[in-house]
Amino acid sequence: MSKIFVDACFGKDTQYTPVWMMRQAGRYLPEYMEVRKEAGNFLNLCHNPKLAAEVTLQPVNIVGVDAAILFSDILVVPNEMGMKLDFLVGEGPVFEKPIKNEVDLDALLGGEEAALKLTYVYKTIKIIKEQLADDKALIGFTGAPWTLATYMIEGEGTKTYNICKKMMYSNPELLHKILAKVTEVVKLYMEKQIEAGIDVVQIFDSWAAAIEPAKYNEFSWKYMVEIADYLKAKYPHVPIIMFPKGIPGFLDEVYGNFDVFGVDWSTPMGYAKEKLGDRYVLQGNMEPCRLYSKEATTECVEALQKIMGGKRHIFNLGHGILPDVPVENAKHFIRECHRVSKK
Amino acid sequence: MSKIFVDACFGKDTQYTPVWMMRQAGRYLPEYMEVRKEAGNFLNLCHNPKLAAEVTLQPVNIVGVDAAILFSDILVVPNEMGMKLDFLVGEGPVFEKPIKNEVDLDALLGGEEAALKLTYVYKTIKIIKEQLADDKALIGFTGAPWTLATYMIEGEGTKTYNICKKMMYSNPELLHKILAKVTEVVKLYMEKQIEAGIDVVQIFDSWAAAIEPAKYNEFSWKYMVEIADYLKAKYPHVPIIMFPKGIPGFLDEVYGNFDVFGVDWSTPMGYAKEKLGDRYVLQGNMEPCRLYSKEATTECVEALQKIMGGKRHIFNLGHGILPDVPVENAKHFIRECHRVSKK
Repeated sequence: MSKIFVDACFGKDTQYTPVWMMRQAGRYLPEYMEVRKEAGNFLNLCHNPKLAAEVTLQPVNIVGVDAAILFSDILVVPNEMGMKLDFLVGEGPVFEKPIKNEVDLDALLGGEEAALKLTYVYKTIKIIKEQLADDKALIGFTGAPWTLATYMIEGEGTKTYNICKKMMYSNPELLHKILAKVTEVVKLYMEKQIEAGIDVVQIFDSWAAAIEPAKYNEFSWKYMVEIADYLKAKYPHVPIIMFPKGIPGFLDEVYGNFDVFGVDWSTPMGYAKEKLGDRYVLQGNMEPCRLYSKEATTECVEALQKIMGGKRHIFNLGHGILPDVPVENAKHFIRECHRVSKK
Repeated sequence: MSKIFVDACFGKDTQYTPVWMMRQAGRYLPEYMEVRKEAGNFLNLCHNPKLAAEVTLQPVNIVGVDAAILFSDILVVPNEMGMKLDFLVGEGPVFEKPIKNEVDLDALLGGEEAALKLTYVYKTIKIIKEQLADDKALIGFTGAPWTLATYMIEGEGTKTYNICKKMMYSNPELLHKILAKVTEVVKLYMEKQIEAGIDVVQIFDSWAAAIEPAKYNEFSWKYMVEIADYLKAKYPHVPIIMFPKGIPGFLDEVYGNFDVFGVDWSTPMGYAKEKLGDRYVLQGNMEPCRLYSKEATTECVEALQKIMGGKRHIFNLGHGILPDVPVENAKHFIRECHRVSKK
């Protein structure tokens, strides 16, 4: 059965413009909170294929999105490379022993060895696919090597990225070695996700905006191009969505073998269309806080439809949905996207 | 005596391109740490004209910048409007009682009453001017009403701004009332800073990027234009620098009675020049982390000089200097800016 979401990723005409929401399997859903409580904590939920599959499917069934996205976390990759990971309440992810030098890096598992340790993810995908309706797509994902490396080097979330950047400007060779090792794992990880059944790949470069424009290609973009080229050579039928958050200043310079470009909410959609619309299908980009108001949601969905005209577009938020959004408003968003774009 | 920095703000030809650094009176300087220790804590230092003047002058004397910037904090404004403020170690600024409704807002001092409570700032300015060399400029500053409002509404720094944004989309009238009240105070505050002796005004819209492009003018930019129009009508000889951080996606849309536009490091300087170079003198924009390496610093200074050609430009960082930068590297940055631009 043809999946409207996959068709839209390839820029084909569809009966309406499909929609999903970043972080759609998340805390705004009471049903998610129930399962998370059962799992004990966030990482346990990522590690439990049955429960992870359950929360992945919730937004499809409850909210009516056109695609499910695998419930997991980008940091399972460095975690399975051998870096001990904790999620501290109120503080976010913390790696016990950040990478300081080549010895630390060499101690980590690479390539196939690391990718094989992520079996619980591939199991989750198989369970989801058994239960997901044939006309809905499943998105698998990974963090971009740069975004993963920021956590691996800083040891936790950061506002200034100053440890990474000291490395970038003073010891770029070491940073490249880290990025190259992560890239090898990510390639195989995404390959195995595809083999397990995902229909679409999304690469999150959540911390793209932490690199100055003059260095972005060297330290992030080129590694994502390498991943895309690797996957496209083997799986041309699997669309790849690239989401580099916060780089509106140099959209002219980002070329690569991706099908869809995720537009964050800080980038005006008309501007993104002008710069990238011929090159990529565009995904996005409602400001997630508009979900606090149905009126503000409808206003934005109509404006986006007017700009994109129902062509080469996938509706989404421009960032993740927040935990305190009423479920009713999320449903309203999905309904409105379908309503305005129906042919 | 003519001040090269003021001339450069007005786009006049100067013998070299002047330079200063955001947060130049700060923790990377051992001499600053001494004075801060003497003051006891950060707010005490802001409140002590003699010590605040001393740290304001340090980077001029130690590092060789062409302009001093008043040592203070943007949050003294809401603080003197009546909001109790603490700086918690490791957590940043916290207001005890954030604004939740109109009653909370009405309880705050406005206009002249609030501006008069900031006497310690005007005293600091007078002390600085007595000691500052005639050819150096003193920059006074304020936070933009929007940026101040985010703290007044959230009660502290935030990643998501979700309380502000709930207000923006669900109760925009209240948000506008807050912004209007803050704007009135800021106008008089900057007027009194000018009367006390500052040579240049800088408005920091540090959280500009927290507003989606479609709402930026309504909730931030237009209030800054109002402030600039008010000051320009009375003090046309005082240049105004506008620094809205992180809005490269819609530079076409920002018109106003400002002389200088501060370019953050996420915006490529060539792109900013193309979009804004005829409209404003441009200030910026070296990525602050380049200060970790002298080579990376020189590379960027030379690239900026090549783009700007020594015309309608002020050298600066694209954000504040970080506490762990070696003083020697900061001096190197200043020397390099002077070297490459000397006529």
